[in-house]
Amino acid sequence: MVGKIFLVGMGPGDKSMMTGQAIEAMESSDIIAGYTVYVDLVKDLFPEKDFFTTPMKQEIERCRKSFEFAREGKNVALICSGDAGVYGMASPVYELWEEYPEVDVCVIPGVTAAISGAAVLGAPINHDFCVISLSDLLTPWEQIEKRLKAAIDGDFSIVIYNPSSKKRADYLKKACDIMLSSGADEKRACGYVENIGRECTRAHVCTLSDLKNESVNMFTTVFIGNSRSKLIGDKLVTPRGYRINE
Amino acid sequence: MVGKIFLVGMGPGDKSMMTGQAIEAMESSDIIAGYTVYVDLVKDLFPEKDFFTTPMKQEIERCRKSFEFAREGKNVALICSGDAGVYGMASPVYELWEEYPEVDVCVIPGVTAAISGAAVLGAPINHDFCVISLSDLLTPWEQIEKRLKAAIDGDFSIVIYNPSSKKRADYLKKACDIMLSSGADEKRACGYVENIGRECTRAHVCTLSDLKNESVNMFTTVFIGNSRSKLIGDKLVTPRGYRINE
Repeated sequence: MVGKIFLVGMGPGDKSMMTGQAIEAMESSDIIAGYTVYVDLVKDLFPEKDFFTTPMKQEIERCRKSFEFAREGKNVALICSGDAGVYGMASPVYELWEEYPEVDVCVIPGVTAAISGAAVLGAPINHDFCVISLSDLLTPWEQIEKRLKAAIDGDFSIVIYNPSSKKRADYLKKACDIMLSSGADEKRACGYVENIGRECTRAHVCTLSDLKNESVNMFTTVFIGNSRSKLIGDKLVTPRGYRINE
Repeated sequence: MVGKIFLVGMGPGDKSMMTGQAIEAMESSDIIAGYTVYVDLVKDLFPEKDFFTTPMKQEIERCRKSFEFAREGKNVALICSGDAGVYGMASPVYELWEEYPEVDVCVIPGVTAAISGAAVLGAPINHDFCVISLSDLLTPWEQIEKRLKAAIDGDFSIVIYNPSSKKRADYLKKACDIMLSSGADEKRACGYVENIGRECTRAHVCTLSDLKNESVNMFTTVFIGNSRSKLIGDKLVTPRGYRINE
Protein backbone atom coordinates (compact mmCIF):
# COMPACT_ATOMS: atom_id res chain seq x y z
CA MET A 1 0.00 0.00 0.00
CA VAL A 2 1.16 3.50 -0.83
CA GLY A 3 1.79 5.93 2.05
CA LYS A 4 0.69 9.49 2.44
CA ILE A 5 2.52 12.82 2.75
CA PHE A 6 1.32 15.29 5.38
CA LEU A 7 2.71 18.79 4.86
CA VAL A 8 2.66 19.89 8.47
CA GLY A 9 2.75 23.54 9.54
CA MET A 10 4.22 23.41 13.02
CA GLY A 11 3.81 27.10 13.89
CA PRO A 12 6.68 28.95 15.57
CA GLY A 13 8.04 25.73 17.14
CA ASP A 14 6.58 25.33 20.61
CA LYS A 15 4.13 22.44 20.98
CA SER A 16 1.48 24.70 22.54
CA MET A 17 1.26 26.64 19.27
CA MET A 18 0.69 23.56 17.10
CA THR A 19 -2.84 22.48 16.19
CA GLY A 20 -4.24 19.12 17.27
CA GLN A 21 -4.25 18.07 13.60
CA ALA A 22 -0.54 18.83 13.25
CA ILE A 23 0.34 16.72 16.29
CA GLU A 24 -1.93 13.91 15.07
CA ALA A 25 -0.32 13.96 11.61
CA MET A 26 3.14 13.56 13.14
CA GLU A 27 1.85 10.81 15.45
CA SER A 28 0.34 8.86 12.56
CA SER A 29 3.48 9.12 10.41
CA ASP A 30 6.34 6.64 10.21
CA ILE A 31 8.91 9.28 9.25
CA ILE A 32 9.24 12.95 10.20
CA ALA A 33 11.16 14.84 7.51
CA GLY A 34 12.32 18.45 7.44
CA TYR A 35 15.07 21.00 7.75
CA THR A 36 17.49 19.87 10.47
CA VAL A 37 16.74 22.81 12.81
CA TYR A 38 12.97 22.18 12.83
CA VAL A 39 13.21 18.40 13.11
CA ASP A 40 15.38 18.92 16.21
CA LEU A 41 12.49 20.88 17.76
CA VAL A 42 10.12 17.88 17.57
CA LYS A 43 12.53 14.98 18.20
CA ASP A 44 11.80 15.03 21.93
CA LEU A 45 8.04 14.97 21.34
CA PHE A 46 8.15 11.89 19.10
CA PRO A 47 11.27 9.95 20.14
CA GLU A 48 10.04 6.69 18.58
CA LYS A 49 9.81 8.05 15.01
CA ASP A 50 12.32 7.83 12.19
CA PHE A 51 13.70 11.18 11.08
CA PHE A 52 14.96 12.39 7.73
CA THR A 53 16.66 15.76 7.52
CA THR A 54 18.36 17.75 4.80
CA PRO A 55 20.14 21.07 5.24
CA MET A 56 18.90 24.35 3.79
CA LYS A 57 18.92 24.65 -0.03
CA GLN A 58 18.30 20.91 -0.39
CA GLU A 59 14.54 21.28 -0.11
CA ILE A 60 13.69 19.66 -3.43
CA GLU A 61 15.71 16.57 -2.54
CA ARG A 62 13.79 16.44 0.77
CA CYS A 63 10.46 16.56 -1.07
CA ARG A 64 11.48 13.91 -3.58
CA LYS A 65 12.72 11.60 -0.85
CA SER A 66 9.38 12.02 0.96
CA PHE A 67 7.59 10.76 -2.16
CA GLU A 68 10.00 7.81 -2.36
CA PHE A 69 9.23 6.91 1.28
CA ALA A 70 5.49 7.17 0.58
CA ARG A 71 5.87 4.94 -2.47
CA GLU A 72 7.46 2.33 -0.16
CA GLY A 73 4.31 2.45 1.98
CA LYS A 74 5.47 4.85 4.67
CA ASN A 75 3.45 7.82 5.93
CA VAL A 76 5.63 10.91 5.98
CA ALA A 77 5.14 14.13 7.97
CA LEU A 78 7.10 16.77 6.08
CA ILE A 79 7.32 19.56 8.63
CA CYS A 80 7.75 23.29 7.98
CA SER A 81 8.08 26.13 10.47
CA GLY A 82 4.96 28.31 10.49
CA ASP A 83 2.75 27.07 7.67
CA ALA A 84 3.79 24.77 4.80
CA GLY A 85 1.86 26.91 2.30
CA VAL A 86 3.56 30.26 3.09
CA TYR A 87 7.07 30.21 1.52
CA GLY A 88 7.09 26.53 2.51
CA MET A 89 7.22 23.09 0.93
CA ALA A 90 3.59 22.89 -0.26
CA SER A 91 4.19 24.18 -3.79
CA PRO A 92 7.38 22.19 -4.55
CA VAL A 93 5.63 19.05 -3.27
CA TYR A 94 2.61 19.64 -5.51
CA GLU A 95 4.94 20.31 -8.45
CA LEU A 96 6.66 16.94 -7.87
CA TRP A 97 3.30 15.23 -7.28
CA GLU A 98 2.84 15.01 -11.06
CA GLU A 99 5.58 12.34 -11.03
CA TYR A 100 4.00 10.44 -8.11
CA PRO A 101 0.24 10.74 -8.70
CA GLU A 102 -0.49 7.62 -6.63
CA VAL A 103 0.67 9.35 -3.42
CA ASP A 104 -1.92 11.28 -1.37
CA VAL A 105 -0.76 14.74 -0.31
CA CYS A 106 -2.46 16.70 2.46
CA VAL A 107 -1.59 20.14 3.84
CA ILE A 108 -2.10 20.60 7.61
CA PRO A 109 -2.30 24.37 8.19
CA GLY A 110 -0.23 26.06 10.87
CA VAL A 111 0.30 29.48 12.43
CA THR A 112 2.64 31.42 10.12
CA ALA A 113 4.91 34.21 11.45
CA ALA A 114 2.62 36.97 10.08
CA ILE A 115 -0.04 35.73 12.52
CA SER A 116 2.12 34.75 15.49
CA GLY A 117 4.27 37.88 15.21
CA ALA A 118 1.17 40.08 14.92
CA ALA A 119 -0.15 38.58 18.17
CA VAL A 120 3.04 39.64 19.98
CA LEU A 121 2.93 43.20 18.58
CA GLY A 122 -0.82 43.71 19.21
CA ALA A 123 -2.92 44.15 16.07
CA PRO A 124 -0.69 45.30 13.17
CA ILE A 125 -2.57 43.42 10.39
CA ASN A 126 -6.13 43.89 11.56
CA HIS A 127 -7.10 45.25 8.13
CA ASP A 128 -6.00 44.40 4.55
CA PHE A 129 -2.34 43.37 4.42
CA CYS A 130 0.50 42.04 2.23
CA VAL A 131 3.18 39.50 2.99
CA ILE A 132 6.49 40.04 1.15
CA SER A 133 9.79 38.14 1.42
CA LEU A 134 13.03 40.08 0.90
CA SER A 135 14.91 36.93 -0.09
CA ASP A 136 16.14 37.24 -3.67
CA LEU A 137 17.30 33.65 -3.85
CA LEU A 138 14.34 32.63 -6.05
CA THR A 139 12.91 36.06 -6.91
CA PRO A 140 14.66 38.91 -8.74
CA TRP A 141 15.13 42.02 -6.58
CA GLU A 142 13.26 44.14 -9.17
CA GLN A 143 10.12 42.08 -8.50
CA ILE A 144 10.49 42.55 -4.74
CA GLU A 145 10.92 46.30 -5.27
CA LYS A 146 7.79 46.41 -7.43
CA ARG A 147 5.79 44.65 -4.73
CA LEU A 148 6.98 46.97 -1.96
CA LYS A 149 5.93 49.93 -4.09
CA ALA A 150 2.52 48.37 -4.88
CA ALA A 151 1.97 47.61 -1.19
CA ILE A 152 2.49 51.30 -0.32
CA ASP A 153 0.33 52.42 -3.28
CA GLY A 154 -2.51 50.25 -1.94
CA ASP A 155 -1.94 51.45 1.66
CA PHE A 156 -1.68 47.88 2.94
CA SER A 157 -0.15 46.88 6.25
CA ILE A 158 2.97 44.95 5.24
CA VAL A 159 4.61 41.90 6.80
CA ILE A 160 8.21 41.27 5.76
CA TYR A 161 9.68 37.77 5.90
CA ASN A 162 13.41 37.09 5.56
CA PRO A 163 14.36 40.74 6.14
CA SER A 164 18.05 40.01 6.35
CA SER A 165 20.78 37.40 6.18
CA LYS A 166 24.56 37.47 6.27
CA LYS A 167 24.77 38.07 2.53
CA ARG A 168 21.87 40.56 2.54
CA ALA A 169 22.66 42.66 5.61
CA ASP A 170 21.29 45.90 4.11
CA TYR A 171 18.06 44.59 2.51
CA LEU A 172 15.70 45.94 5.17
CA LYS A 173 17.30 49.36 4.83
CA LYS A 174 16.86 49.17 1.03
CA ALA A 175 13.22 48.11 1.50
CA CYS A 176 12.55 51.03 3.88
CA ASP A 177 14.05 53.47 1.35
CA ILE A 178 11.76 52.09 -1.38
CA MET A 179 8.68 52.43 0.87
CA LEU A 180 9.66 55.98 1.88
CA SER A 181 10.26 57.03 -1.71
CA SER A 182 6.90 55.45 -2.68
CA GLY A 183 5.12 57.88 -0.38
CA ALA A 184 5.07 56.23 3.05
CA ASP A 185 5.48 58.76 5.85
CA GLU A 186 8.71 58.69 7.89
CA LYS A 187 6.55 58.45 11.02
CA ARG A 188 4.62 55.38 9.78
CA ALA A 189 4.17 53.05 12.80
CA CYS A 190 6.23 49.84 12.52
CA GLY A 191 7.48 46.99 14.64
CA TYR A 192 9.35 43.73 14.55
CA VAL A 193 9.53 40.46 16.46
CA GLU A 194 12.49 38.15 16.85
CA ASN A 195 12.33 34.46 17.84
CA ILE A 196 8.52 34.33 17.96
CA GLY A 197 7.11 31.72 20.33
CA ARG A 198 10.43 30.92 21.97
CA GLU A 199 11.83 31.94 25.34
CA CYS A 200 13.89 34.76 23.92
CA THR A 201 11.09 36.51 22.00
CA ARG A 202 11.99 40.17 21.50
CA ALA A 203 9.48 42.73 20.21
CA HIS A 204 10.10 46.36 19.37
CA VAL A 205 8.00 49.18 17.91
CA CYS A 206 9.37 52.23 16.06
CA THR A 207 8.78 54.57 13.12
CA LEU A 208 9.56 53.68 9.50
CA SER A 209 12.55 56.04 9.42
CA ASP A 210 13.95 54.40 12.57
CA LEU A 211 13.30 50.91 11.23
CA LYS A 212 15.90 51.61 8.52
CA ASN A 213 18.67 51.49 11.06
CA GLU A 214 17.41 48.61 13.20
CA SER A 215 19.45 45.46 13.26
CA VAL A 216 17.40 42.40 12.28
CA ASN A 217 18.29 38.84 11.38
CA MET A 218 16.77 35.84 9.58
CA PHE A 219 14.64 35.03 12.66
CA THR A 220 12.98 38.47 12.62
CA THR A 221 9.55 39.24 11.17
CA VAL A 222 8.98 42.93 10.38
CA PHE A 223 5.62 44.77 10.33
CA ILE A 224 4.94 48.11 8.59
CA GLY A 225 1.58 49.65 9.52
CA ASN A 226 -0.76 51.29 7.02
CA SER A 227 -1.36 55.07 7.04
CA ARG A 228 -3.90 54.68 9.89
CA SER A 229 -1.80 52.45 12.15
CA LYS A 230 -0.71 53.81 15.50
CA LEU A 231 1.25 52.91 18.60
CA ILE A 232 -0.84 52.34 21.74
CA GLY A 233 1.62 51.87 24.59
CA ASP A 234 4.10 49.32 23.23
CA LYS A 235 1.56 47.84 20.81
CA LEU A 236 1.24 48.39 17.04
CA VAL A 237 -2.45 48.68 16.15
CA THR A 238 -4.10 48.95 12.73
CA PRO A 239 -7.78 49.92 12.97
CA ARG A 240 -10.34 47.62 11.37
CA GLY A 241 -11.49 50.16 8.84
CA TYR A 242 -11.42 53.69 7.57
CA ARG A 243 -14.70 54.73 9.12
CA ILE A 244 -15.24 55.53 12.76
CA ASN A 245 -16.34 52.44 14.68
CA GLU A 246 -19.86 52.20 16.05
CA MET B 1 -7.50 41.31 41.58
CA VAL B 2 -8.03 42.39 37.99
CA GLY B 3 -8.69 39.68 35.38
CA LYS B 4 -7.14 39.21 31.97
CA ILE B 5 -8.50 39.24 28.41
CA PHE B 6 -7.34 36.52 26.03
CA LEU B 7 -8.13 37.32 22.39
CA VAL B 8 -8.43 33.75 21.17
CA GLY B 9 -8.15 32.78 17.50
CA MET B 10 -10.09 29.55 17.28
CA GLY B 11 -9.27 28.71 13.64
CA PRO B 12 -12.05 27.49 11.33
CA GLY B 13 -14.06 26.08 14.27
CA ASP B 14 -13.18 22.42 14.73
CA LYS B 15 -11.25 21.65 17.91
CA SER B 16 -8.56 19.76 15.97
CA MET B 17 -7.60 23.01 14.22
CA MET B 18 -7.18 25.01 17.44
CA THR B 19 -3.75 25.37 19.03
CA GLY B 20 -3.03 24.02 22.50
CA GLN B 21 -2.63 27.64 23.71
CA ALA B 22 -6.12 28.54 22.45
CA ILE B 23 -7.71 25.61 24.29
CA GLU B 24 -5.71 26.43 27.43
CA ALA B 25 -6.80 30.09 27.32
CA MET B 26 -10.46 29.07 27.17
CA GLU B 27 -9.92 26.54 29.97
CA SER B 28 -8.31 29.14 32.22
CA SER B 29 -11.05 31.73 31.63
CA ASP B 30 -14.19 32.29 33.68
CA ILE B 31 -16.17 33.66 30.76
CA ILE B 32 -16.10 32.85 27.05
CA ALA B 33 -17.33 35.83 25.01
CA GLY B 34 -17.97 36.15 21.29
CA TYR B 35 -20.32 36.29 18.38
CA THR B 36 -23.24 33.92 19.03
CA VAL B 37 -22.42 31.56 16.13
CA TYR B 38 -18.82 30.98 17.30
CA VAL B 39 -19.64 30.66 20.98
CA ASP B 40 -22.12 27.92 20.03
CA LEU B 41 -19.22 26.01 18.44
CA VAL B 42 -17.30 25.80 21.75
CA LYS B 43 -20.17 25.45 24.24
CA ASP B 44 -19.97 21.66 24.12
CA LEU B 45 -16.22 21.71 24.74
CA PHE B 46 -16.46 23.87 27.87
CA PRO B 47 -19.94 23.24 29.30
CA GLU B 48 -18.98 24.54 32.76
CA LYS B 49 -18.06 28.07 31.61
CA ASP B 50 -20.13 31.21 31.59
CA PHE B 51 -20.86 32.59 28.15
CA PHE B 52 -21.45 36.12 26.91
CA THR B 53 -22.60 36.64 23.35
CA THR B 54 -23.60 39.61 21.26
CA PRO B 55 -24.93 39.49 17.71
CA MET B 56 -23.02 40.82 14.69
CA LYS B 57 -22.47 44.61 14.55
CA GLN B 58 -22.34 44.81 18.35
CA GLU B 59 -18.64 43.99 18.49
CA ILE B 60 -17.60 47.12 20.37
CA GLU B 61 -20.14 46.46 23.11
CA ARG B 62 -18.74 42.91 23.36
CA CYS B 63 -15.20 44.24 23.77
CA ARG B 64 -16.24 46.84 26.36
CA LYS B 65 -18.16 44.26 28.36
CA SER B 66 -15.08 41.99 28.34
CA PHE B 67 -13.08 44.80 29.96
CA GLU B 68 -15.83 45.28 32.56
CA PHE B 69 -15.73 41.55 33.40
CA ALA B 70 -11.91 41.71 33.68
CA ARG B 71 -12.19 44.73 35.97
CA GLU B 72 -14.44 42.62 38.21
CA GLY B 73 -11.64 40.07 38.46
CA LYS B 74 -12.81 37.60 35.82
CA ASN B 75 -10.58 36.12 33.11
CA VAL B 76 -12.27 36.45 29.74
CA ALA B 77 -11.61 34.49 26.54
CA LEU B 78 -12.89 36.70 23.73
CA ILE B 79 -13.06 34.27 20.84
CA CYS B 80 -12.85 35.05 17.12
CA SER B 81 -13.11 32.70 14.15
CA GLY B 82 -9.75 32.27 12.43
CA ASP B 83 -7.37 34.72 14.09
CA ALA B 84 -8.31 37.65 16.34
CA GLY B 85 -5.78 39.89 14.59
CA VAL B 86 -7.06 39.43 11.01
CA TYR B 87 -10.29 41.49 10.64
CA GLY B 88 -10.98 40.43 14.24
CA MET B 89 -11.37 41.94 17.68
CA ALA B 90 -7.68 42.58 18.44
CA SER B 91 -7.59 46.19 17.23
CA PRO B 92 -10.90 47.36 18.79
CA VAL B 93 -9.81 45.77 22.08
CA TYR B 94 -6.44 47.57 22.01
CA GLU B 95 -8.23 50.83 21.15
CA LEU B 96 -10.48 50.43 24.22
CA TRP B 97 -7.51 49.33 26.34
CA GLU B 98 -6.56 53.00 26.78
CA GLU B 99 -9.63 53.30 29.04
CA TYR B 100 -8.78 50.15 31.02
CA PRO B 101 -4.96 50.19 31.27
CA GLU B 102 -4.98 47.98 34.38
CA VAL B 103 -6.31 45.01 32.37
CA ASP B 104 -3.80 42.65 30.74
CA VAL B 105 -4.59 41.83 27.11
CA CYS B 106 -3.02 38.89 25.30
CA VAL B 107 -3.57 37.72 21.70
CA ILE B 108 -3.53 33.92 21.17
CA PRO B 109 -2.88 33.41 17.44
CA GLY B 110 -5.06 31.09 15.36
CA VAL B 111 -5.28 29.70 11.84
CA THR B 112 -6.98 32.36 9.68
CA ALA B 113 -8.98 31.44 6.55
CA ALA B 114 -6.16 32.53 4.20
CA ILE B 115 -4.06 29.71 5.70
CA SER B 116 -6.74 27.05 6.23
CA GLY B 117 -8.35 27.71 2.84
CA ALA B 118 -4.96 27.60 1.12
CA ALA B 119 -4.33 24.17 2.65
CA VAL B 120 -7.56 22.86 1.08
CA LEU B 121 -6.73 24.30 -2.37
CA GLY B 122 -3.08 23.14 -2.39
CA ALA B 123 -0.52 25.96 -2.38
CA PRO B 124 -2.13 29.18 -3.71
CA ILE B 125 -0.16 31.62 -1.47
CA ASN B 126 3.23 29.95 -1.50
CA HIS B 127 4.85 33.23 -2.55
CA ASP B 128 4.15 36.93 -1.70
CA PHE B 129 0.43 37.55 -1.19
CA CYS B 130 -2.23 40.09 -0.17
CA VAL B 131 -5.34 39.68 1.92
CA ILE B 132 -8.24 41.99 1.01
CA SER B 133 -11.78 42.16 2.42
CA LEU B 134 -14.60 43.18 0.07
CA SER B 135 -16.77 44.36 2.97
CA ASP B 136 -17.41 48.09 2.65
CA LEU B 137 -19.06 48.36 6.04
CA LEU B 138 -15.99 50.06 7.57
CA THR B 139 -13.97 50.79 4.41
CA PRO B 140 -15.03 52.93 1.41
CA TRP B 141 -15.32 50.93 -1.81
CA GLU B 142 -12.83 53.28 -3.54
CA GLN B 143 -10.14 52.12 -1.09
CA ILE B 144 -10.96 48.45 -1.77
CA GLU B 145 -10.77 49.13 -5.51
CA LYS B 146 -7.38 50.82 -5.09
CA ARG B 147 -6.06 47.81 -3.19
CA LEU B 148 -7.27 45.30 -5.77
CA LYS B 149 -5.51 47.32 -8.46
CA ALA B 150 -2.29 47.58 -6.43
CA ALA B 151 -2.38 43.83 -5.74
CA ILE B 152 -2.47 43.12 -9.49
CA ASP B 153 0.22 45.76 -10.19
CA GLY B 154 2.50 43.98 -7.69
CA ASP B 155 1.61 40.53 -9.12
CA PHE B 156 0.66 39.22 -5.68
CA SER B 157 -1.46 36.14 -5.04
CA ILE B 158 -4.65 37.55 -3.53
CA VAL B 159 -6.92 36.17 -0.82
CA ILE B 160 -10.39 37.71 -0.66
CA TYR B 161 -12.36 37.69 2.61
CA ASN B 162 -16.07 38.57 2.76
CA PRO B 163 -16.53 38.21 -1.01
CA SER B 164 -20.29 38.52 -0.80
CA SER B 165 -23.31 39.02 1.40
CA LYS B 166 -27.02 39.49 0.81
CA LYS B 167 -26.61 43.23 0.33
CA ARG B 168 -23.43 42.86 -1.72
CA ALA B 169 -24.32 39.98 -4.04
CA ASP B 170 -22.29 41.33 -6.99
CA TYR B 171 -19.09 42.42 -5.17
CA LEU B 172 -16.96 39.48 -6.29
CA LYS B 173 -17.99 40.13 -9.89
CA LYS B 174 -17.05 43.81 -9.48
CA ALA B 175 -13.70 42.82 -7.93
CA CYS B 176 -12.95 40.43 -10.83
CA ASP B 177 -13.71 43.20 -13.33
CA ILE B 178 -11.29 45.54 -11.54
CA MET B 179 -8.55 42.88 -11.54
CA LEU B 180 -9.13 42.10 -15.23
CA SER B 181 -9.05 45.77 -16.21
CA SER B 182 -5.86 46.20 -14.13
CA GLY B 183 -4.08 43.73 -16.39
CA ALA B 184 -4.75 40.28 -14.90
CA ASP B 185 -5.17 37.62 -17.58
CA GLU B 186 -8.64 36.07 -18.04
CA LYS B 187 -6.99 32.66 -17.64
CA ARG B 188 -5.38 33.54 -14.27
CA ALA B 189 -5.71 30.42 -12.05
CA CYS B 190 -8.15 30.93 -9.14
CA GLY B 191 -10.10 28.95 -6.59
CA TYR B 192 -12.38 29.23 -3.63
CA VAL B 193 -13.30 27.29 -0.51
CA GLU B 194 -16.59 27.28 1.36
CA ASN B 195 -17.11 26.20 5.00
CA ILE B 196 -13.43 25.52 5.64
CA GLY B 197 -12.75 22.90 8.32
CA ARG B 198 -16.35 21.76 8.57
CA GLU B 199 -18.05 18.66 7.23
CA CYS B 200 -19.48 20.40 4.21
CA THR B 201 -16.20 21.94 2.94
CA ARG B 202 -16.47 22.66 -0.78
CA ALA B 203 -13.45 23.62 -2.89
CA HIS B 204 -13.42 24.64 -6.53
CA VAL B 205 -10.74 25.83 -8.97
CA CYS B 206 -11.37 27.93 -12.08
CA THR B 207 -10.05 30.81 -14.21
CA LEU B 208 -10.44 34.48 -13.28
CA SER B 209 -13.02 35.04 -16.02
CA ASP B 210 -15.06 32.09 -14.75
CA LEU B 211 -14.74 33.27 -11.14
CA LYS B 212 -16.79 36.33 -12.09
CA ASN B 213 -19.88 34.21 -12.46
CA GLU B 214 -19.39 31.85 -9.54
CA SER B 215 -21.84 32.01 -6.70
CA VAL B 216 -20.15 32.62 -3.35
CA ASN B 217 -21.40 33.56 0.10
CA MET B 218 -20.09 35.04 3.35
CA PHE B 219 -18.57 31.67 4.32
CA THR B 220 -16.44 31.54 1.16
CA THR B 221 -12.75 32.50 0.94
CA VAL B 222 -11.54 33.28 -2.59
CA PHE B 223 -7.99 32.89 -3.94
CA ILE B 224 -6.58 34.59 -7.08
CA GLY B 225 -3.21 33.22 -8.18
CA ASN B 226 -0.33 35.39 -9.35
CA SER B 227 0.81 35.38 -13.02
CA ARG B 228 2.84 32.18 -12.41
CA SER B 229 0.15 30.20 -10.59
CA LYS B 230 -1.19 27.05 -12.22
CA LEU B 231 -3.68 24.27 -11.74
CA ILE B 232 -2.15 20.83 -11.02
CA GLY B 233 -5.05 18.37 -11.02
CA ASP B 234 -7.64 20.01 -8.79
CA LYS B 235 -5.02 21.99 -6.86
CA LEU B 236 -4.11 25.70 -7.21
CA VAL B 237 -0.32 26.05 -6.94
CA THR B 238 1.80 29.22 -6.81
CA PRO B 239 5.51 28.46 -7.29
CA ARG B 240 7.91 29.60 -4.58
CA GLY B 241 9.79 32.00 -6.83
CA TYR B 242 10.37 33.35 -10.28
CA ARG B 243 13.51 31.37 -10.91
CA ILE B 244 13.62 27.71 -11.79
CA ASN B 245 13.96 25.60 -8.64
CA GLU B 246 17.15 23.67 -7.99
